[in-house]
Amino acid sequence: MDFDFVNQHIVSTKKRVQLEAIDSKVMGPFRDKEEGTLFTSHAIEELRNLQYRLFVEGKQSLLIVLQAPDAAGKDGLIRKVLGQMNPQGCRTYPFKVPTAIERSHDFLWRIHRATPATGMISIFNRSHYEDVLVVRVEDLVPKELWSQRYEMINQFEALLAHRGTRILKFYLHISPEEQLERFKERLDLPEKHWKLNPGDYEARKRWPDYRKAYEDVFDKCNKKHAPWFVIPSDRKWYRNAAVAAIVRDTMRDMDPSMPPIDVDLTEIRRLYEQAAGE
Amino acid sequence: MDFDFVNQHIVSTKKRVQLEAIDSKVMGPFRDKEEGTLFTSHAIEELRNLQYRLFVEGKQSLLIVLQAPDAAGKDGLIRKVLGQMNPQGCRTYPFKVPTAIERSHDFLWRIHRATPATGMISIFNRSHYEDVLVVRVEDLVPKELWSQRYEMINQFEALLAHRGTRILKFYLHISPEEQLERFKERLDLPEKHWKLNPGDYEARKRWPDYRKAYEDVFDKCNKKHAPWFVIPSDRKWYRNAAVAAIVRDTMRDMDPSMPPIDVDLTEIRRLYEQAAGE
Repeated sequence: MDFDFVNQHIVSTKKRVQLEAIDSKVMGPFRDKEEGTLFTSHAIEELRNLQYRLFVEGKQSLLIVLQAPDAAGKDGLIRKVLGQMNPQGCRTYPFKVPTAIERSHDFLWRIHRATPATGMISIFNRSHYEDVLVVRVEDLVPKELWSQRYEMINQFEALLAHRGTRILKFYLHISPEEQLERFKERLDLPEKHWKLNPGDYEARKRWPDYRKAYEDVFDKCNKKHAPWFVIPSDRKWYRNAAVAAIVRDTMRDMDPSMPPIDVDLTEIRRLYEQAAGE
Repeated sequence: MDFDFVNQHIVSTKKRVQLEAIDSKVMGPFRDKEEGTLFTSHAIEELRNLQYRLFVEGKQSLLIVLQAPDAAGKDGLIRKVLGQMNPQGCRTYPFKVPTAIERSHDFLWRIHRATPATGMISIFNRSHYEDVLVVRVEDLVPKELWSQRYEMINQFEALLAHRGTRILKFYLHISPEEQLERFKERLDLPEKHWKLNPGDYEARKRWPDYRKAYEDVFDKCNKKHAPWFVIPSDRKWYRNAAVAAIVRDTMRDMDPSMPPIDVDLTEIRRLYEQAAGE
């Protein structure tokens, strides 16, 4: 499979994204779901190995940011793909409505605490971008405040990158029609009723506002060291395959290597022989 | 499979454990490895469902403590069994040599920060018990200090249990011979060389001291609300099966239930129909 998922879905730094112009239902190089799912399971296998090497190497780290409209599949992507890595080297952080303590700090405070240490991977389920998305669309702070945050975010991400953190930012792109289908499924399946929220329909009405807010994010906060990807997500299996491939390719590029042995092998062999002889 | 793993491996509160008298190579109800592995994969499937319910319920939490001699398989158990749960509801915390900040607090400070919130599961890879194990055996603090910690630990665990946290504590029991086998494997496989540490052989020499320290822990810190289990771990597949079964049975007993719907279904259906009609 020599399809280049990175180049296919990375947001250009040259021209403004028009989300409406991006097909959310593509199948990429795959003929059908089975082919895509098989590809994903191989990619996950390789991801596990790469993560192990990243952990043992202990020099670089990886930050994966997930943003999306409601029901676009952040949870599913974590469950099926990203959460398949060893939890000892990979942590998920959900960012919800800020708590009282979080609100008493700047908007990057809670984010900074969750960034990955060397050898580690952090997955952000929502992120600091909410502070220029929902906060903007719902008018939670004055424009004067949120409009300054793009540059603060860029500075912050540059700081992380400078210390050896690779940053991947994924927008899961679904159509309003697909979202409505998934809302219907939540209504039809009693075990999904706990997810129901009248607020979902409110946010839906502001779809064009959110689209504009996301397009501004892609325009203002898209750097070589912290690129955005728009992942067509109407098909869950394609979403999984594309993200798995992009994370895999990025980690291949990071090329973590097992550190040189800093112990005396001869000495350890002697200790072993001694213990075995007892 | 009506084998009762809980009763088989739980540490009695009535009489002192003699670790040497416990067979570390048992196969329980299984005829062979294949049977055990199949059992484990079914148990993990059920664990995933139970964890989902625990998360959605949002009322109880679960704390899993892992302690073991080196090479007994804590990491493997996390990779193969416990880490298979959804990382959004389940976090792993490795406790290593305390950092400078951690040392400037009491020994339970770093532990308390890692206890599970409601709906969540915490897995401790090593734990507060190191402060009455390695600290005692290596004579890192005076007996006067560590000997008071058993009661402090009991009070601390009672506090957690009182708030709705179930606590399971696993000791992975391997024989010195099996440990030596695994040390040899680390020598033989270059990709495991990074795990080599001459200190392992030092700790091995103190095996009887560690055994005594563990037996004291089982004697002093084994409560109905926070029981210890001694898991025969010479066979990795049996270790996995037994722990999976005990966690599963505990979560069955916790019986997390989906919360009642607190939204107006008729209203949501109206909102859906309205959106679908547009």
